[in-house]
Amino acid sequence: MPYFDAASALPPHPVARQAMLAALDEGWADPTRLHREGRRARLLLDAARESAAESLGCRPDELVFAPSGTRALHTAVAGALTGRRRVGNRLLVSAVEHSAVLHAAEAHEAGGGRVSRLGVDREGRVLLEEVRAALAEEKGAAALLCLQSANHEVGTVQPLSEVAAYCLDARVPLLVDAAQTLAWQNPPGGWSLLTGSAQKWGGPAGVGLLVVRKGTRFAPAGPLDERERGWMPGAPGLPAIVAAAASLRAARAEAAVESERLRTLVDRIRTAVPQLVPDTEVVGHPQERLPHLVTFSCLYADGESLLHALDQAGFSVSSGSSCSSSTLTPSHVLRAMGVLSEGNVRVSLPPGTTGAEVDAFLAALPEAVRSVRARLDPPAGTGGGATATSGGTAASGGTATSGGTAADVAETSGSAETSGSAAATGGGEAAGAGTAGAPVGLTVDALGRRCPMPVIELAKVIDRVPVGGIVTVLADDEAARLDIPAWCRMRGHRYLGAEGTAHRVAREK
Amino acid sequence: MPYFDAASALPPHPVARQAMLAALDEGWADPTRLHREGRRARLLLDAARESAAESLGCRPDELVFAPSGTRALHTAVAGALTGRRRVGNRLLVSAVEHSAVLHAAEAHEAGGGRVSRLGVDREGRVLLEEVRAALAEEKGAAALLCLQSANHEVGTVQPLSEVAAYCLDARVPLLVDAAQTLAWQNPPGGWSLLTGSAQKWGGPAGVGLLVVRKGTRFAPAGPLDERERGWMPGAPGLPAIVAAAASLRAARAEAAVESERLRTLVDRIRTAVPQLVPDTEVVGHPQERLPHLVTFSCLYADGESLLHALDQAGFSVSSGSSCSSSTLTPSHVLRAMGVLSEGNVRVSLPPGTTGAEVDAFLAALPEAVRSVRARLDPPAGTGGGATATSGGTAASGGTATSGGTAADVAETSGSAETSGSAAATGGGEAAGAGTAGAPVGLTVDALGRRCPMPVIELAKVIDRVPVGGIVTVLADDEAARLDIPAWCRMRGHRYLGAEGTAHRVAREK
Repeated sequence: MPYFDAASALPPHPVARQAMLAALDEGWADPTRLHREGRRARLLLDAARESAAESLGCRPDELVFAPSGTRALHTAVAGALTGRRRVGNRLLVSAVEHSAVLHAAEAHEAGGGRVSRLGVDREGRVLLEEVRAALAEEKGAAALLCLQSANHEVGTVQPLSEVAAYCLDARVPLLVDAAQTLAWQNPPGGWSLLTGSAQKWGGPAGVGLLVVRKGTRFAPAGPLDERERGWMPGAPGLPAIVAAAASLRAARAEAAVESERLRTLVDRIRTAVPQLVPDTEVVGHPQERLPHLVTFSCLYADGESLLHALDQAGFSVSSGSSCSSSTLTPSHVLRAMGVLSEGNVRVSLPPGTTGAEVDAFLAALPEAVRSVRARLDPPAGTGGGATATSGGTAASGGTATSGGTAADVAETSGSAETSGSAAATGGGEAAGAGTAGAPVGLTVDALGRRCPMPVIELAKVIDRVPVGGIVTVLADDEAARLDIPAWCRMRGHRYLGAEGTAHRVAREK
Repeated sequence: MPYFDAASALPPHPVARQAMLAALDEGWADPTRLHREGRRARLLLDAARESAAESLGCRPDELVFAPSGTRALHTAVAGALTGRRRVGNRLLVSAVEHSAVLHAAEAHEAGGGRVSRLGVDREGRVLLEEVRAALAEEKGAAALLCLQSANHEVGTVQPLSEVAAYCLDARVPLLVDAAQTLAWQNPPGGWSLLTGSAQKWGGPAGVGLLVVRKGTRFAPAGPLDERERGWMPGAPGLPAIVAAAASLRAARAEAAVESERLRTLVDRIRTAVPQLVPDTEVVGHPQERLPHLVTFSCLYADGESLLHALDQAGFSVSSGSSCSSSTLTPSHVLRAMGVLSEGNVRVSLPPGTTGAEVDAFLAALPEAVRSVRARLDPPAGTGGGATATSGGTAASGGTATSGGTAADVAETSGSAETSGSAAATGGGEAAGAGTAGAPVGLTVDALGRRCPMPVIELAKVIDRVPVGGIVTVLADDEAARLDIPAWCRMRGHRYLGAEGTAHRVAREK
């Protein structure tokens, strides 16, 4: 049963299991105590720190263990900001950072600090011009810049060397969230703070790490104690920490060979998916990317259903679609990149994945997508469309979404250019608002309907207006802002923008 | 090799080991993910929560897991204070709470909040009159009251039922730090928040728990995510959590029998120590106490050396003496109780401790104390005194402490009543400041010397003044404020108070 969600958590490395047991047997005591059991625990903790520091290329006294990668990031951001509070209070983060960084940024704002969110290109790489401008704007007095080594959702590797050079120039500390790359290698130098999470390299849940380079101003706030340099309160989770250090070393020993092997397998997926499944878009940078991760989005499908279909077929993947999370907003990463979010699938291969497993996935994917699309009554020619428009499955799928089984469509022969906002209030009332010389228009009311329904309804009616004609889609699902423009790009139509919940699309061909 | 430091951490229960391995094998995935590995992890997490909730007598949705008992306390205090910020900002804590609570209180003060530290009696029980007065003073608008179920250093059980009744009356939420008692039983009802630490009941390091009763206003601040009700950010350390829940259940199954057995063994220690070792004081409440814990202090000894001597004899114990910690201040618990801190030893028996092990400890203790005392050149008649005054060991022990090998002693025949502060500035200069009718006085200069040296010097010279005469001890070690009065109490002399670093003692017999 192939597990393709390595970017969330890896199955524990065999040495993690051994190390955890040994540490539970030998290192259960409080390592701050002076008796022999305490000293034994202390030795294990020190050894774990030295081993991890060696893997990371830092000094042991620059490294502290945290209860998770998230806590490491929270402490890193807060400690660096407090340490620099006399210099400035502007925090710079890329728009595609892990939510832990974005939450820390929100907390900084709530406390009166300022935050700049730096944009990314369509491949997900931070815009160097924005980095440079943001640093320049603060005249070197920005408090901190946070940038991930690679993106956790689309796998794009960030231009860390360039950003580090800018930061050194501006004398602004750089925090690198290296969670997605520490299994493979260390990030390039020039950073002041670095964080990681053991779950991503084959260690157990419950261990993060934080490296603070000598000379970095750092002052975590809140209640603290003497543990971990006074930066991470509470007794460290020793068995898990020892397992984390052992598995990091083991992962690195296999990293070079394994990353090349997985890179080839991911290339196979990147090439095959658009050929095997119509109306899909592979997102993320094609070259500057993680070796083991590929993400694609499928028009006319929702991510959660796709994930379930693949799970039933025996494949565990992840999704950044709004539909797959409890928050009902599409992934902030896909949003910042401006790419399609609907039917999003992230495949991240753990070490040891075989070519046969990847081939099995590619063999199962088309039917999984087709079955999901079929339930949503998609436009013709999308695999599931032919049977879906009349089948019982399609009907029950349709009623399962809110807002009726089909969108209300109002035709207008008047000026579609001006009827958009009027149509938004009442469906067909805009008809006849104008008559002369304007392109024929259509309004699709998909208010209250969840992704990917607004796009499906748009796709079904686009041929009903002539080339140059306008379809206005009324849609209040937040994903529509991403998915309607992405659909236009993929299908060769022109997105004219949105006014409130009214999205206007010009048929181009 | 008997391990008698259960109050720091217990050796893991055998079921913890099994559960941890099973959870590592089956529950390594991210429990928020929808694929089968994620669902499996979720099932384990849910089962652990249900099991722990059943043990604690709460609802599963009232219980969240934390990375440590310390983090649970920090979140509990901060969340409850923020939840009540419109009612009031006064935090009430007993003076003998765990340092995690005191650190949280300091953070509250740093943020502009108010804190009252409630005194305890000489046995360590919070003064109910102070509780009542503090609640009355705020007219029911105190934000939170924190009280431990039992003290971690001296084992005294707190009058929780009475305090809970006061809190209910005043409609002030009560947070119970139950770390030291959850292995045995649940605290009495009436609390709003409860915390614990798995290390104390045979679970692994890295797991705390927090229960927030339905209806309690609770709003943790800072960066958060969707984990654990949005109260504990970061992926939960699943293997350790599963082990923690399993071991709690196992501990409870054995608690009734084991607590009675250990109580008898502790009684044996409480009775025997003062008989076997001269000049010792057993501290903490004799009846209202933890079943497995006893603490005593030894005059003319330092805790760290005692701990090492016992360690060498094969016994692992803990100490609340200043000398045993990196902070150089005596335990805040002993300070608040006003009892002797020097030569402090905490013995806390893990389940399974045998009578033979306890007897072996009692057999080894007198020689351990004697050897430590001998190195410090104590007054005659304290076990090690006879050989210590001339032996080579004593000399090297003497030079190891700062401030010279022996205290400067200045005799004065003038008014010791008024010469105290003058003597403090220069040793013998006070001699002759007055002449008529005053008791003969002595000044001992122990400035710069660490505990227990000031008390040892005091004990050596007390017989050189007549009954009614005054010895002034110049001592700047913080422990002297505790240990000189305690010595007076134990030896039947009268402590007249301190002025700056000058402590004045009247010989009574």
